Amino acid sequence: MTSTVQPLYLEDMAVGRRFQSGEHAMDAAQIIAFAQQFDPQPFHMDDAAAQGTLFGGLAASGWHTAAITMRLQVTTGLPVAGGIIGASGDVAWPRPTRPTDVLHVVSEVMEVNPSRSKPDRGMVTIRSETRNQNGEVLQISTVRIVVPRRPGAAS
Amino acid sequence: MTSTVQPLYLEDMAVGRRFQSGEHAMDAAQIIAFAQQFDPQPFHMDDAAAQGTLFGGLAASGWHTAAITMRLQVTTGLPVAGGIIGASGDVAWPRPTRPTDVLHVVSEVMEVNPSRSKPDRGMVTIRSETRNQNGEVLQISTVRIVVPRRPGAAS
Repeated sequence: MTSTVQPLYLEDMAVGRRFQSGEHAMDAAQIIAFAQQFDPQPFHMDDAAAQGTLFGGLAASGWHTAAITMRLQVTTGLPVAGGIIGASGDVAWPRPTRPTDVLHVVSEVMEVNPSRSKPDRGMVTIRSETRNQNGEVLQISTVRIVVPRRPGAAS
Repeated sequence: MTSTVQPLYLEDMAVGRRFQSGEHAMDAAQIIAFAQQFDPQPFHMDDAAAQGTLFGGLAASGWHTAAITMRLQVTTGLPVAGGIIGASGDVAWPRPTRPTDVLHVVSEVMEVNPSRSKPDRGMVTIRSETRNQNGEVLQISTVRIVVPRRPGAAS
């Protein structure tokens, strides 16, 4: 497990290396504000309305959990040199994010593929779990990102 | 191509059926506001800073494009009875969303799987393209959602 503020280059991305982010405390106001703007469904906006649904209570939009995961990785979890630029990925939400959850992200390098056509970069596959304060997994994502080589490093 | 305001049940989800959403006009202020909150990287917050990056100009966070796609589907594109509840999915961003883009979403039913254990519902796989006003594809997503059977329908 590594927590670093040094920018990460392709050379730093060993398969199996792990990173842990800081924390983000969710609350009902954030859940409702995001939902009103991007996912205006009753179970994301009103606790009483959510009781009678699959969620059984107020739950964050999955895309809100994804957005907070991104924030945690950009600000604390995964300081990739030049930024985190994703090309594609997959995401699953095994359980809903609740108003009382405090989120953090644990990421692991799954695959490193130096580019054949562009010697200054590579593609890195990162698997991330977004967990709450009880260690329960709220989101699992696997994203392919572009990572530059360290300037001056042999290619 | 269908545009409907009738709630959709599992019985309405024929493989190949398509749905088209309304439109959402992006602008620089929205891109920057989302990025400041969820993806604070220079190429999502500052046009000048974005010039020297892979993006070559201000570009929305991919998670912002995903969130707007969700909004368009919830409000106009895919009126699933009981709401759109995703369990998992994948997403790709073949090109960045720009401040001048006007987005809409075209969705297609790819797969319908009635639940064996829960006769009142099924899982439906929806593939969606988020396109701009020139028909350029900004996001492709495939999401598995829970869809209820029509009440009173034979199972």
